[in-house]
Amino acid sequence: MKIVVDAFGGDNAPLEVVEGAVLAVNKDKELTVVLTGDKDKIEKILNGRQERIEIVDAKEIISNNDSPTLAIRQKKDSSLVRAFDILKENNDVVGLVSAGSTGAVLTGAILKIGRIKGISRPALCPILPTVKPDKTVMICDSGANVDCKSEHLLHFAIMASAYSSIMSGDKNPKVALLNNGAEEHKGNELTKETYPLMQKLPINFVGNIEAREVMSGEVDVIVTDGFAGNILLKSVEGVASGMSKLIHKEAKKNIFAMIGAVMMGKFKGLKEKMDINKYGGAPFLGCKKLVVKTHGSANREIICNTIMQVVKLYENKLNEQIEKLVLEMSENDEVKA
Amino acid sequence: MKIVVDAFGGDNAPLEVVEGAVLAVNKDKELTVVLTGDKDKIEKILNGRQERIEIVDAKEIISNNDSPTLAIRQKKDSSLVRAFDILKENNDVVGLVSAGSTGAVLTGAILKIGRIKGISRPALCPILPTVKPDKTVMICDSGANVDCKSEHLLHFAIMASAYSSIMSGDKNPKVALLNNGAEEHKGNELTKETYPLMQKLPINFVGNIEAREVMSGEVDVIVTDGFAGNILLKSVEGVASGMSKLIHKEAKKNIFAMIGAVMMGKFKGLKEKMDINKYGGAPFLGCKKLVVKTHGSANREIICNTIMQVVKLYENKLNEQIEKLVLEMSENDEVKA
Repeated sequence: MKIVVDAFGGDNAPLEVVEGAVLAVNKDKELTVVLTGDKDKIEKILNGRQERIEIVDAKEIISNNDSPTLAIRQKKDSSLVRAFDILKENNDVVGLVSAGSTGAVLTGAILKIGRIKGISRPALCPILPTVKPDKTVMICDSGANVDCKSEHLLHFAIMASAYSSIMSGDKNPKVALLNNGAEEHKGNELTKETYPLMQKLPINFVGNIEAREVMSGEVDVIVTDGFAGNILLKSVEGVASGMSKLIHKEAKKNIFAMIGAVMMGKFKGLKEKMDINKYGGAPFLGCKKLVVKTHGSANREIICNTIMQVVKLYENKLNEQIEKLVLEMSENDEVKA
Repeated sequence: MKIVVDAFGGDNAPLEVVEGAVLAVNKDKELTVVLTGDKDKIEKILNGRQERIEIVDAKEIISNNDSPTLAIRQKKDSSLVRAFDILKENNDVVGLVSAGSTGAVLTGAILKIGRIKGISRPALCPILPTVKPDKTVMICDSGANVDCKSEHLLHFAIMASAYSSIMSGDKNPKVALLNNGAEEHKGNELTKETYPLMQKLPINFVGNIEAREVMSGEVDVIVTDGFAGNILLKSVEGVASGMSKLIHKEAKKNIFAMIGAVMMGKFKGLKEKMDINKYGGAPFLGCKKLVVKTHGSANREIICNTIMQVVKLYENKLNEQIEKLVLEMSENDEVKA
């Protein structure tokens, strides 16, 4: 099994990406990683550690400042476009990992790899921590599709349910619809139309969830259009970082607060809990092949975790499950949106 | 000047509401508060302190479990409906305060009081703290209108700009559009259509803002449809409460963490900063008369602050300013949505 990794995507590329690939092949002896990017630089980092690591040379880099569509079309010798070409052209390459521009990864996946039959809109599905120990929650879609119809939300639901089930081992993950109220009659036009249809899907739909309950750990998957999903995810990020800044500022004001702030450093469990990235990356669900975007600031451990995540999703046949579910859905007249 | 207060709305009614009214009339010697609700119970709490406090008897109570529309139509002897009747029928009553059901307050405002000419959709506009000292940010709309068109967002922008200006004293508050990216071309259909129109409004429009920047203190007003606004506000609430719970749990695990948690209690400034309610309540902007919803768990200080907020908005002619701005907007062909 081979996985292709964009060695020049992300803030810590190429060093941390290359080291993450080395960690991954050491962890899984069946795995080969193909690294794309400047061959000389990659070889220098590898310094001979090339067992089950292949390199495909690519001289260009796509940055967050590039227009995604233009970059994918024009930067043909970029590490990301080369990675997509390798994913597309080789049957034994089962997935792609990149810490680069989210927009470029999504655009590349659509243009180069394409969608699973029946899925009109692939969706990005990151993981958030919750207040319950070892419990996480997945948000689908988190921003790939800002204008959605009911049908799209239904697809997000079945894809993320299958994904959650593989990651957690829970065969019946709880799926909820993000809404402005818990009651069935609440919502905007989109969620009100989607609710009754979602009840008929072959998943464990548990109803609406309000944004304040996102971290409660009560559900496994939260389905939303990408605009609201983006607002949700970024406000979680913003508040967590805002609270940290406030704590830091207060800490300078008096000795009690200073001690308190030092003690905060001891909250290892908390820090780890809030570190979403240890779970790997966010898969772009609904692509013909596995594509996982990991955080731009990913270090070698996170890169390794993300590669291992692709292995897990491939071995558990995520895409075959999605294909089967969407076929079932299309044959069920009750869930026609 | 008179302000009517629903004495039986909220979790701490009637005690804290009545005590809040007493605080307010003691603070402002020109002010009379009209309390609606069970007269005997209110008089018992007042215990003779009735200078500039009037009571209008009402035997029913509207709860969060009531359907807002049915409750406003049928519970004619409820403290809230009586309060709206008084607001409607008396020229010297300039505003209404309630800590009761948000849905019922919004419905009552629309059905009993009506909209300012030219404003198609009144909007709820709560305040959030930011990481900057003494700087807050207003979110408009936070949930009253879950399906919006561009025109509605433009109205939200001018109303909240006028409101922010009165509250902060800053004549030129910075108004931003909540979006899934900072760049002008980003957004869903609604925000992409709204952006260029908002540039032509007679306000200080500073462009898009991402949800992660909400607490940055860089802008004064964030304009959004009520669905995304609800997601934003509730996720802020959820993360803040989730982080507190996590800290508390961790605190039980080891002595360092325990001391840390105790020290957290010393972070008075922080606690106050995160306590949104000290600023008062959320006005329902665009109603013919001032209607302010305050938090269900409001104590006497918050009730008092909310009453004083109505005084301030009335004295600074918020509604006249909104009328003037919406007239200007309607005469400007460039901002036709």
